[in-house]
Amino acid sequence: MASKTPVGFIGLGNMGNPMARNLVKHGYPVVVYDVFPEACKEFQDLGAQVTESPADVAERADRIITMLPSSPHAQEVYTGGNGILKKVKKGSLLIDSSTIDPSVSKELAKAAENMGAVFMDAPVSGGVGAALAGNLTFMVGGVEQEFNAAKELLTCMGSNVVYCGEVGTGQAAKICNNMLLAISMIGTAEAMNLGIRLGLDPKLLAKILNMSSGRCWSSDTYNPVPGVMEGVPSANNYQGGFGTTLMAKDLGLAQISATNTKTPVPLGSQAHQIYRMMCAKGYAVKDFSAVFQFLREEESL
Amino acid sequence: MASKTPVGFIGLGNMGNPMARNLVKHGYPVVVYDVFPEACKEFQDLGAQVTESPADVAERADRIITMLPSSPHAQEVYTGGNGILKKVKKGSLLIDSSTIDPSVSKELAKAAENMGAVFMDAPVSGGVGAALAGNLTFMVGGVEQEFNAAKELLTCMGSNVVYCGEVGTGQAAKICNNMLLAISMIGTAEAMNLGIRLGLDPKLLAKILNMSSGRCWSSDTYNPVPGVMEGVPSANNYQGGFGTTLMAKDLGLAQISATNTKTPVPLGSQAHQIYRMMCAKGYAVKDFSAVFQFLREEESL
Amino acid sequence: MASKTPVGFIGLGNMGNPMARNLVKHGYPVVVYDVFPEACKEFQDLGAQVTESPADVAERADRIITMLPSSPHAQEVYTGGNGILKKVKKGSLLIDSSTIDPSVSKELAKAAENMGAVFMDAPVSGGVGAALAGNLTFMVGGVEQEFNAAKELLTCMGSNVVYCGEVGTGQAAKICNNMLLAISMIGTAEAMNLGIRLGLDPKLLAKILNMSSGRCWSSDTYNPVPGVMEGVPSANNYQGGFGTTLMAKDLGLAQISATNTKTPVPLGSQAHQIYRMMCAKGYAVKDFSAVFQFLREEESL
Amino acid sequence: MASKTPVGFIGLGNMGNPMARNLVKHGYPVVVYDVFPEACKEFQDLGAQVTESPADVAERADRIITMLPSSPHAQEVYTGGNGILKKVKKGSLLIDSSTIDPSVSKELAKAAENMGAVFMDAPVSGGVGAALAGNLTFMVGGVEQEFNAAKELLTCMGSNVVYCGEVGTGQAAKICNNMLLAISMIGTAEAMNLGIRLGLDPKLLAKILNMSSGRCWSSDTYNPVPGVMEGVPSANNYQGGFGTTLMAKDLGLAQISATNTKTPVPLGSQAHQIYRMMCAKGYAVKDFSAVFQFLREEESL
Repeated sequence: MASKTPVGFIGLGNMGNPMARNLVKHGYPVVVYDVFPEACKEFQDLGAQVTESPADVAERADRIITMLPSSPHAQEVYTGGNGILKKVKKGSLLIDSSTIDPSVSKELAKAAENMGAVFMDAPVSGGVGAALAGNLTFMVGGVEQEFNAAKELLTCMGSNVVYCGEVGTGQAAKICNNMLLAISMIGTAEAMNLGIRLGLDPKLLAKILNMSSGRCWSSDTYNPVPGVMEGVPSANNYQGGFGTTLMAKDLGLAQISATNTKTPVPLGSQAHQIYRMMCAKGYAVKDFSAVFQFLREEESL
Repeated sequence: MASKTPVGFIGLGNMGNPMARNLVKHGYPVVVYDVFPEACKEFQDLGAQVTESPADVAERADRIITMLPSSPHAQEVYTGGNGILKKVKKGSLLIDSSTIDPSVSKELAKAAENMGAVFMDAPVSGGVGAALAGNLTFMVGGVEQEFNAAKELLTCMGSNVVYCGEVGTGQAAKICNNMLLAISMIGTAEAMNLGIRLGLDPKLLAKILNMSSGRCWSSDTYNPVPGVMEGVPSANNYQGGFGTTLMAKDLGLAQISATNTKTPVPLGSQAHQIYRMMCAKGYAVKDFSAVFQFLREEESL
Repeated sequence: MASKTPVGFIGLGNMGNPMARNLVKHGYPVVVYDVFPEACKEFQDLGAQVTESPADVAERADRIITMLPSSPHAQEVYTGGNGILKKVKKGSLLIDSSTIDPSVSKELAKAAENMGAVFMDAPVSGGVGAALAGNLTFMVGGVEQEFNAAKELLTCMGSNVVYCGEVGTGQAAKICNNMLLAISMIGTAEAMNLGIRLGLDPKLLAKILNMSSGRCWSSDTYNPVPGVMEGVPSANNYQGGFGTTLMAKDLGLAQISATNTKTPVPLGSQAHQIYRMMCAKGYAVKDFSAVFQFLREEESL
Repeated sequence: MASKTPVGFIGLGNMGNPMARNLVKHGYPVVVYDVFPEACKEFQDLGAQVTESPADVAERADRIITMLPSSPHAQEVYTGGNGILKKVKKGSLLIDSSTIDPSVSKELAKAAENMGAVFMDAPVSGGVGAALAGNLTFMVGGVEQEFNAAKELLTCMGSNVVYCGEVGTGQAAKICNNMLLAISMIGTAEAMNLGIRLGLDPKLLAKILNMSSGRCWSSDTYNPVPGVMEGVPSANNYQGGFGTTLMAKDLGLAQISATNTKTPVPLGSQAHQIYRMMCAKGYAVKDFSAVFQFLREEESL
């Protein structure tokens, strides 16, 4: 343990905080930075070095993990005036676990390469609970030879680390999955709602779908209809889970990637719009399965 | 076996033919009718009584199964000038395995009730292969006390007979399942296509989706991308399977049911339109997973 | 004037009432019926004969106009147990101004023909205001030789009477127009909303659209953005005008017609779903231009 | 005329060529650049200075117009290694007539401002014909005080120069108009197609729409149905006009702007997908009104 060299961690929000703590638990000395200084406080108490900027982190650690809310944040942290790349050491390993536009990941990888460093994208699936429990899934894109080095760190925070291909493919895998998830969740909500209005019992309908070709994760593991399953957000007024705003954000990334690659995504695009409308109508902080509630309300006439 | 009373069977097309043969195999004497007299020929050779009209069938059998292509056909066969109800015996059991508008099933049930007969809707899932093998799934709607009587016959043709509730709920279950199926198939095609264009290997992407929240029957059992799985239509130039025209028909029924019950089905409705456009563009007889091919072709510029 | 023979009028609701009053103003003796007896009261005071059923109307008048809320109502009034066709006189002219499924219009025309009567569909465009002012537009389908006879009556209630073709084409023209109207209204709301968020002044944007290829009735005559125009529902909190529920109903008819004729209508179908969701979200009684309000609200996060 | 100072022009493609020629016609000495040297040849013959790079143009002219195919091209021409901003003179006026992402226009304006220059976005409406005839419409965004200086040049190439507001609003106006145009064109194609299938004569239906609330530029000026109007692409097998690929590109920009501003655009988004599918199905070089043809073909079954 004593031989472990320090690992930088930038972005100590809801997800980054438990991820960095899991690194500490596994015996890694950490060097942290967050735009909100108070976010670093508890890591200081845990013995971490607290720094003033991403560039400072890069000066003190040659393996850095970043967990940031969006593409512009990632661009600022890597290529900004006090960004990592200002002081990155040659041969450093930079792992970005943010969910961002894959074309931005590629940009950052090229900029890192120019400085002699290696950049990998490694977005996660699984929410705050999985981050706390250390069983996130990481989808990793980047140079294959560096995958093992990345995996060593990522397995401290996740139970599943999947190599996806060249830089950007980690992001690609994540947004493709989430786009399909959104589509099948809305589809499940529509099918359950239609069946109920046609006189079917919701539990029976779910059972029929789950033994038929309509079966999907949204119908059999995360059913959006209250009363069908326990332990899911629909059983708890759509609290917790994966927020509608976050789903809208990921669908926006899918949309931008599809537009840039001229790929038709008619349902993905419509799913994006539906989550966008839900955000505009007060569902922003509810779990994304609340689309059932959004669709079902009675006509006033 | 000798004690078995005759069973009527009307509609000896691609599906009805093997279904009726399975009844014969189970030792039931059958009384058949089809608008195309030649369709009855082979049943005559098997010892079946061939009749001139649905009314004739009703005269000779008090249990009748119908398998017809659409709502108007079903209306004609039950309530037309030479329809079943013209000569139906009191207490007869009428089982309609056609996939039709559930509101038409309700209409026919009422008309049957007026004549002292019982009508149940029992649409199937599974195609010609399952009909031949006798392992269709039947989704049955109607008076619960009659379910066992219906099940006795249906188990000769299917391995799975599910009671869904009052008349029309068999249809409801089927169209809800198929609507969700269409949505998740198109979603799978979009997600796979987007991922491929973003640089992911199709097999790897399918593997990632299938261990994640995007998992669905269309991704793990019937993947639409050639080369990902064997033994599915996408491995065979989209031949066989469940035709695009049939999917478009079922989505049309879902659409009509949703319109009649004022249920919003934004993705179901869009899926309907996509299969409609595919029919207009030469995909009518291909398997419905050919939506991957419909979406993927390269831009000409 | 004295020589005018009586005209039957069935359906004295918001639209039917002023239409029938305009017939009276033009000197026609009227014979009325409505399911709500109180709706007939004021016509009794005007000298009209009040009857007990549609069949009664048919007994006393050989020209009858019907104005009903939906296809099933029209079917009941024409072909029900006490319907017009029970006692219709040979050679009667039956004009249905309801907005219904064109295939139902055809059905009723055939039933009327069997009784020796002539049925024409003549749905209206223009709301209660136009009905009061007597300047509705009638779109008329039916046998061309009878058009002049129909026109004589319809010109008492409308300023524009257009012959569209065989039976059902009046309905077809209306639902095609309203489908395009809904699409361009939602499109206008989206374009205005997007422009405003991108920093454009709404009045300036409307001006630019109206002198460009985006120009449409919804942008230049009925703009959905408050403050852009006066005298339209958007200037009055979306009160008055053409209700969202009515638009959803017409789009439902378009949907059913498109499904029956296997016509792809991807945007018409999506417009239907959007108005359906608006009905579920409290916009049912607002003018259909309130789609701008439905789309614009701020994200809560 | 002799006193006119040189004007730079970068991007001499289908649109840029006739625009630059119109500047020459109005007596402006021009300094040109294009990535394809042969594109400059004919301007040399007209007496223009031909340069080696955008930076060279900026050295020799303090008013520059750019006409480029996409955001990345514009970024390269302005901020690339040999870009305009490398050698731009203080006080220069830079007018970009490309259609690009408004957020890129804002970026470029900021970069120009840092060098003491003024950047305005001035995308055009009207195609090659209007460029040749010098009657384009320019939608101009940027500092209001500079609008007259820009207008002096733009009126040589267009008949209509509209000030839209701060930088980026020219682009915003253009993409909002084109998004609404695409929506109403598809809507017109759907409504006409549905009406025809329901038995209406196309010319009569167009006439009814155009006197009703469905009226729009696509129905009354550029009708997509062959035989309804003369002198439009639908009368000429959808040749000429505004290509499907270009419309798909503009809808992509609308999509990206909507995603960035979190604006719901459900129909705009669907229109984008439809034009995307058309590009994938062989319609890329046809006029965008060919969506009628895309939707109408007969079912093969």
